[in-house]
Amino acid sequence: MDFDAFFQDSLARLKSEGNYRVFADIERRKGAFPCATRHHEDGESEVTVWCSNDYLGMGQHPVVLEAMHEALERCGAGAGGTRNISGTNHYHVLLERELADLHGKEAALLFTSGYVSNWATLGTLASRIPGCIVLSDALNHASMIEGIRHSRAQKHVFAHNDPADLDRRLSQLDPDAPKLVAFESVYSMDGDIAPIAEICDVAERHGAMTYLDEVHGVGLYGPRGGGIAEREGLMDRITVIEGTLGKAYGVMGGYIAGSAAMCDFVRSFSSGFIFTTALPPAVAAGACAAVRYLKTSQMERERQRRNVRLVRARLAGIGIPTLDNPSHIVPVMVGDPVKCKRISDWLMATHGIYVQPINYPTVPKGTERLRITPSPVHSDGDIDRLIAALSEIWSECALHRNYNVA
Amino acid sequence: MDFDAFFQDSLARLKSEGNYRVFADIERRKGAFPCATRHHEDGESEVTVWCSNDYLGMGQHPVVLEAMHEALERCGAGAGGTRNISGTNHYHVLLERELADLHGKEAALLFTSGYVSNWATLGTLASRIPGCIVLSDALNHASMIEGIRHSRAQKHVFAHNDPADLDRRLSQLDPDAPKLVAFESVYSMDGDIAPIAEICDVAERHGAMTYLDEVHGVGLYGPRGGGIAEREGLMDRITVIEGTLGKAYGVMGGYIAGSAAMCDFVRSFSSGFIFTTALPPAVAAGACAAVRYLKTSQMERERQRRNVRLVRARLAGIGIPTLDNPSHIVPVMVGDPVKCKRISDWLMATHGIYVQPINYPTVPKGTERLRITPSPVHSDGDIDRLIAALSEIWSECALHRNYNVA
Repeated sequence: MDFDAFFQDSLARLKSEGNYRVFADIERRKGAFPCATRHHEDGESEVTVWCSNDYLGMGQHPVVLEAMHEALERCGAGAGGTRNISGTNHYHVLLERELADLHGKEAALLFTSGYVSNWATLGTLASRIPGCIVLSDALNHASMIEGIRHSRAQKHVFAHNDPADLDRRLSQLDPDAPKLVAFESVYSMDGDIAPIAEICDVAERHGAMTYLDEVHGVGLYGPRGGGIAEREGLMDRITVIEGTLGKAYGVMGGYIAGSAAMCDFVRSFSSGFIFTTALPPAVAAGACAAVRYLKTSQMERERQRRNVRLVRARLAGIGIPTLDNPSHIVPVMVGDPVKCKRISDWLMATHGIYVQPINYPTVPKGTERLRITPSPVHSDGDIDRLIAALSEIWSECALHRNYNVA
Repeated sequence: MDFDAFFQDSLARLKSEGNYRVFADIERRKGAFPCATRHHEDGESEVTVWCSNDYLGMGQHPVVLEAMHEALERCGAGAGGTRNISGTNHYHVLLERELADLHGKEAALLFTSGYVSNWATLGTLASRIPGCIVLSDALNHASMIEGIRHSRAQKHVFAHNDPADLDRRLSQLDPDAPKLVAFESVYSMDGDIAPIAEICDVAERHGAMTYLDEVHGVGLYGPRGGGIAEREGLMDRITVIEGTLGKAYGVMGGYIAGSAAMCDFVRSFSSGFIFTTALPPAVAAGACAAVRYLKTSQMERERQRRNVRLVRARLAGIGIPTLDNPSHIVPVMVGDPVKCKRISDWLMATHGIYVQPINYPTVPKGTERLRITPSPVHSDGDIDRLIAALSEIWSECALHRNYNVA
């Protein structure tokens, strides 16, 4: 077999379908977020980033950077090993304590990424608990799906954010079988929020454990940044809370929080935890500083909410359709993959505005969108320029406007 | 089901089998490697680390740390997104170029860890190439095994480092089926090295692609640190070379190098690449500096080899049995799990020498060992103290000595 020809054919098919991804090569500039320098064939240009998951701009916060510089000077670059073989640094221990405290749990366990924490934890729990049956929300993230798939446990998909459907499906299962309900708090692409209390009611009625992915919630919601479950006073009803250090906390890494026995179990049996080099001490130190800071500072969350409200109101004012949701994610609906990509390219080329187009398979066909994430570091001028540019391209492309008054 | 009781029972079983892991909480001190501060219940103490995979001490090298400090100041802490959605930083692009050049390949692709690069690449190739059959060395790393398992491709395990067995197994397969031969260059626990040329001969004869894990080779072998395949002039015969930035390069991250089409294929289809936050710019910058530096500097490799030879000779001189191998890994064979753990504890408590015990299931029962990794940053005094301490405990435990003259 000619392997390279096979790879090239597959890529050609992707391109013809309009699903081939070209990465924007950008350099965010510390102190100037959301501004960044874009590198391209003809040189460099300035862009304003409107699609970052560094939701609060913590990636440039002095407390985070100082902690990272200091840890670099103190401990050097990498961890030098797996957690078991010389790779556990004191910063990992401190960060795990900080995260357990954040979620009001006995313990927490660090992973190299949110993807790995979902994949490894769900893979370990669902395969190691004998006869475990997984109930998985229809819109769960790829990392959760892959983890459940890897476990080879029996899986049932329940309708998105639908406790009644979950209840029906659980009722049909053997009452004595161990069950795990896996879902997210804030769904990344639509920005909708799960009815956590109702899902916990159903899970508890059936004796199922609950696994909540809060990667788009931690740092952003709750008085201490513990996520939607903290805001709603529900953290103690969730068996496993999973979060990331790479979005609102601005650094990198993933984690779970829960009972000491659960975390120790995953620590002891999960291949994806055991056989990998630990996070660099400086990464753990930076994340720890961000988590600690956002436990008390409300300024970033307040300013972000204000900017989200403002962007939504300004878009509504000019009739540009957004998907309504109660979160910080503003999906501007285009509904056509070619136009979506073209608008994004035009915004970048003409106005230095960077919003990545989100097309199939990340979202269903016909719901192609620009996913905008207003942050506390966007200025009113940034918002003015975004709105003006979108209005211009909306007219030029003769896209639908929607003047429903709220 | 009482989930916590289940977790506790499983942990109790691990403990009774002697397989429960307790992590040493250490802080390596920049500028003082291999020295570290150990945090424990009674306070702190000083230790010399003899089991790090920061094989060349690059984790404290000024060129690496300067690059990381500079990138932190320039771009901030995290990447802020996946590679596709605002997370590609110019440092990622530069690092991928540096790695492609290192291995004489058209392209390279970064992952968040070596574990993820193995899991995601093997998982993607073996599942996406229709009818792909994987031939896997019997001692391949957990991350490769999990990736192959995840792909659900047909798998055949060939005898460790045995091209004849590989040939026999390939001969029994459909000649037209696409095949992938996955193996490592340096095996981590025994330190033995694969017969890469012979394996390539066999693979080529059967039209199979080759996947070589060089995580314990890159930075250490070859005139530019390209690994065992570079040293033996075989890089162009390997389809996919996989490596890590977390061991000899002293930072964190994994990668593959190969044809542009192959890298683009994995980039485009691999869930573990696509749906995860990119490495922090500072991590990419530090790794890039380490890779570039070790392309020309021979000092670290030479000093490491000298220390490996010295430790081996000194151990042989006092009859302490090591597993003979041609690499930088010195396995001191104990052959009993309880004694292995006890020796390790005693070395730490009495002499401040940290060597993690390696027991089942990481190695087969009866081959329990202390895995020692001499580095260029160990002094002759460190070696004297290691040898004296091992000699003392060997006598105290009445362990076998072996005075075979080489």
